[in-house]
Amino acid sequence: MALKAQVLYDFTAEPGNNELTVKEGETITVTNKGIGGGWIEAQNSRGEVGLVPEDYIEFKNEFPAASTAPPSNAGNAAYPDLSVFDAFAPVSTPAQNQASNGNDPWSAWNADPSGGTNNNWASNPEGTQTGKSAPDPWGNVSQGHPQAYQGPAAEDDEWDDEWDEMKSSAGYAESESGEAGGIQRGGMHASSMKISLNKFPGFSKSGPELYLLCKQIAKGKDKLSIYVGEVGPVWSYPETQIDCIVADPKKGSKMYGLKSYIEYQITPNTTNRPVNHRYKHFDWLYERLLDKFGSAIPIPSLPDKQVTGRFEEEFIKMRMERLQGWMSRMCRHPVISGSDVFQLFLTYKDEKDWKTGKRKAEKDETVGVMIFTTIEPEAADLEPLEVEQKCEQFSKFTKAMDDSVKEILTVGNEHWKRCTGPLPKEYQRIGKALQNLSTVFTSSGYQGESTLTDALTAAGKTYEEIAQLVAEQPKKDLHFLMETNNEYKGLLGCFPDTIGVHKAAIDKVKEGDKLVAANKITTQDKVAMSKRLSTMSYTLQAEMNHFHSNRIYDYNRVMQQYLEEQVKFYETIAGKLRQAHGQFTTM
Amino acid sequence: MALKAQVLYDFTAEPGNNELTVKEGETITVTNKGIGGGWIEAQNSRGEVGLVPEDYIEFKNEFPAASTAPPSNAGNAAYPDLSVFDAFAPVSTPAQNQASNGNDPWSAWNADPSGGTNNNWASNPEGTQTGKSAPDPWGNVSQGHPQAYQGPAAEDDEWDDEWDEMKSSAGYAESESGEAGGIQRGGMHASSMKISLNKFPGFSKSGPELYLLCKQIAKGKDKLSIYVGEVGPVWSYPETQIDCIVADPKKGSKMYGLKSYIEYQITPNTTNRPVNHRYKHFDWLYERLLDKFGSAIPIPSLPDKQVTGRFEEEFIKMRMERLQGWMSRMCRHPVISGSDVFQLFLTYKDEKDWKTGKRKAEKDETVGVMIFTTIEPEAADLEPLEVEQKCEQFSKFTKAMDDSVKEILTVGNEHWKRCTGPLPKEYQRIGKALQNLSTVFTSSGYQGESTLTDALTAAGKTYEEIAQLVAEQPKKDLHFLMETNNEYKGLLGCFPDTIGVHKAAIDKVKEGDKLVAANKITTQDKVAMSKRLSTMSYTLQAEMNHFHSNRIYDYNRVMQQYLEEQVKFYETIAGKLRQAHGQFTTM
Repeated sequence: MALKAQVLYDFTAEPGNNELTVKEGETITVTNKGIGGGWIEAQNSRGEVGLVPEDYIEFKNEFPAASTAPPSNAGNAAYPDLSVFDAFAPVSTPAQNQASNGNDPWSAWNADPSGGTNNNWASNPEGTQTGKSAPDPWGNVSQGHPQAYQGPAAEDDEWDDEWDEMKSSAGYAESESGEAGGIQRGGMHASSMKISLNKFPGFSKSGPELYLLCKQIAKGKDKLSIYVGEVGPVWSYPETQIDCIVADPKKGSKMYGLKSYIEYQITPNTTNRPVNHRYKHFDWLYERLLDKFGSAIPIPSLPDKQVTGRFEEEFIKMRMERLQGWMSRMCRHPVISGSDVFQLFLTYKDEKDWKTGKRKAEKDETVGVMIFTTIEPEAADLEPLEVEQKCEQFSKFTKAMDDSVKEILTVGNEHWKRCTGPLPKEYQRIGKALQNLSTVFTSSGYQGESTLTDALTAAGKTYEEIAQLVAEQPKKDLHFLMETNNEYKGLLGCFPDTIGVHKAAIDKVKEGDKLVAANKITTQDKVAMSKRLSTMSYTLQAEMNHFHSNRIYDYNRVMQQYLEEQVKFYETIAGKLRQAHGQFTTM
Repeated sequence: MALKAQVLYDFTAEPGNNELTVKEGETITVTNKGIGGGWIEAQNSRGEVGLVPEDYIEFKNEFPAASTAPPSNAGNAAYPDLSVFDAFAPVSTPAQNQASNGNDPWSAWNADPSGGTNNNWASNPEGTQTGKSAPDPWGNVSQGHPQAYQGPAAEDDEWDDEWDEMKSSAGYAESESGEAGGIQRGGMHASSMKISLNKFPGFSKSGPELYLLCKQIAKGKDKLSIYVGEVGPVWSYPETQIDCIVADPKKGSKMYGLKSYIEYQITPNTTNRPVNHRYKHFDWLYERLLDKFGSAIPIPSLPDKQVTGRFEEEFIKMRMERLQGWMSRMCRHPVISGSDVFQLFLTYKDEKDWKTGKRKAEKDETVGVMIFTTIEPEAADLEPLEVEQKCEQFSKFTKAMDDSVKEILTVGNEHWKRCTGPLPKEYQRIGKALQNLSTVFTSSGYQGESTLTDALTAAGKTYEEIAQLVAEQPKKDLHFLMETNNEYKGLLGCFPDTIGVHKAAIDKVKEGDKLVAANKITTQDKVAMSKRLSTMSYTLQAEMNHFHSNRIYDYNRVMQQYLEEQVKFYETIAGKLRQAHGQFTTM
């Protein structure tokens, strides 16, 4: 008897990848269990065969893997001695929350008094596991595609030699970065969390106390300076702005053609020498950046694996466009663009160079909150109260902007649908109706009919042309407005976590006196904590100012572009109608 | 116990007339049975009290009046000896069909072989009685307002002394025009037909044989000439085109304020002296014109009693606009505008003059098909075959145009709804979303924000303005396109009847030889019939040419007006957007 399996989560096949779209609750027949790389081959009830991630299914009559294992808080070995902070609630980490895009990352900041804790994770232990309502690129909630799937680990690692080293170190986050103890490790050992683990190896490194109380601050090199400029604290910007061009997607295949992939060519303006990367390399870069900078700098997620576009070409084009947007944003960030890992990605010389750099980046210990140890604000320390006020302000602003951006996405999506659906159909029908009337008039047999009928036909055709203009317009203007807002939605979705680290640090510093009184920390420790909180605040302010300046630039540009195209659109229509009008005789 | 009644047909109250809207099947309580004039006062289940036409209700536990009496064909006394035509199927009359706007007047011309008879009435005996699905002014089928109700007889005749003379002669059509025998009188004596009888006193005068075989042709005066012009047979047009202005609606009341009415001022360009008329006077004129000219000239119905507009002012304005359109069309027709009854309506000197003229018009015997006796084509007689071909051509054309006009009305109505409903709401939401974003940005605390936020706010407001422009636009352009097509729909709806009379005459002439052989008519009669058919054909052709020339003028004008306004609309939007665009800084 064929091996049956039940689908646990909706999975949408990526075009051109021999995958099979399945729905939660569906029963499928497993036709090949031995595909490897986290995939099985299955057939659905309609006889369609394709690959399905094995984590998405449950074999019938088997005990469901470990996916139902409850979160465990065992093994909270901590360094430095974090047991002094047992009064603190466990703090959410960027990695955890950024992995659970399906949940409202803002929920922790909502006014709900019952849930008024910073601990997203504690109140939502399944956050990273079953984010089944991931927002689609237009802000709609799509049907049950677990966001966690977006990591590459479950995709095709086993088929790629280059990746084996990473695969084999599934638990390296523990072994190699021992100091990043298990404070938030609860339940993470369960095999169902494999994807998340692989995606966010640094999830356990970001408790702010790690930084606030660490003994050793700076290693001298790789210092990140913050200056106080006209607008307040700002990053040190490079003289030349890096940028790159993502282009020329090429299809390759593996496993004797069973799985295919797309390789993109990335050309930085610094070297003008192209390097090739697959989506999973981008994803690797994203993980490294998140791991290293996520506590201080919101790292926007990569474009969804599932983007709009039913056809492969459209899909590839869309993904490339979004990878370009993501890369440009990274290039524009002075800290990210200057980092070793980012430079490696853009300018590796050959395979060997890439592998060496990769290994080095994965062993980087200055990750999580430890990134703050490399930051040097060139300004006087800030009082905790001022820090808190700033933090509140940023929190409010980013929340408000997130709401506003989502509103634009909702409205824009509706407008898009109207412009590409009913509206052009209506103009087409108007056009047809006028042309039909013209045809009838032509049949009158009455003399001197043709001036009117020619003009009527032309008017009818004009409305058909308008129909087409209307249908095509969103691609010319609304598209960029939507893409920009979509990008900002992603970026803003990272702020609650970044700010969360900050808030947790503020809380910890507030406890300072109590801890000194209880002899848990020294007065020196307390002073150091306060100074380090000041550094964190400068970082957050520099980051906010970076965000503001980019935001003003981006919205100015996209609105100009939108309005320019809109003007052209209405002028074109007016021009066409004026021409149609001219065909009628003045009487 | 209160007297209950069941509502037989939907009735929509006319605004400002103390009427009560009722639905078919509803039970109402009669609060005053003695109102008179065909009205009763009733209260519905929600406690609302108002007037309802008594023909629309059935008193509970009473035998339902005569409304269920079957059509009877008794009493077909005919003059001249029409019994010779017993081979002919009964022929529909314009009056009958024009009263049944709710049914498709084109149905008789459909290709349906089973119903391939000219007899609309026979296949639809309820045509004039329960036209319950009357198309509304925008071509939608409204819920059950019997079209027959539009006549004035049942409205308020008894309250108007001036009208008593007409009221008392409910049967005058029979007694005074005795020669108009009862060939189509079947079932018309039933009291349920009172409205139709009053509305169309001449319904029985139009059997074409009346004219084809009548002994005496012309009285010498009131001759209507037809010339053969460039486009074919044409009416003799007057040197000066009459027109008039319908304006200045004034409200009056009767029955101690129980019923109110509107009086319009009509000023013809010939005398430049205004006369006053109420809607029912227009309706009286319509009846006279239909009675006198309906067999030869399609007389479009007056604007519906129930026009769009929920508020009284809007309703009055709309009705006035449509009465103006109707009057202008009548003025443009050389035969109608030159007729005594039309001139009386436009130029009566005083009350006495009006009453005398009214009485005279009502006694006019040259009605129905007898109008053809006054027509003198100044051209050679046409062969019956040619007559038939022309007739077929007109029939096809008017049917095709009717379809096309209805298509435009349907599409236009949809467009109207979109432009006044969802579309402006969407632009408003876009505008609000942009303004909200601007408000959020303003709260950033970042320097140099105001250039962007001011521009964003301006852009948002621009989209709100666009929303308003979009919502108001249909009134500026689509309105006239719809009104013109609606007028044409009404006009085209009259053609099947006019052409029907013609087709019946053709059939009769075809029977000529047979009738001669059977000694039912003389050879002379047969020749006369053929000649008279030729006259009818010239009339139809002149009328078609009049229609064509007006149609070309009207559609040219309305399309120009529409496109002109459309151009202005799109240019205005483009201009506003250009201005909004200019507020963003170029970077």
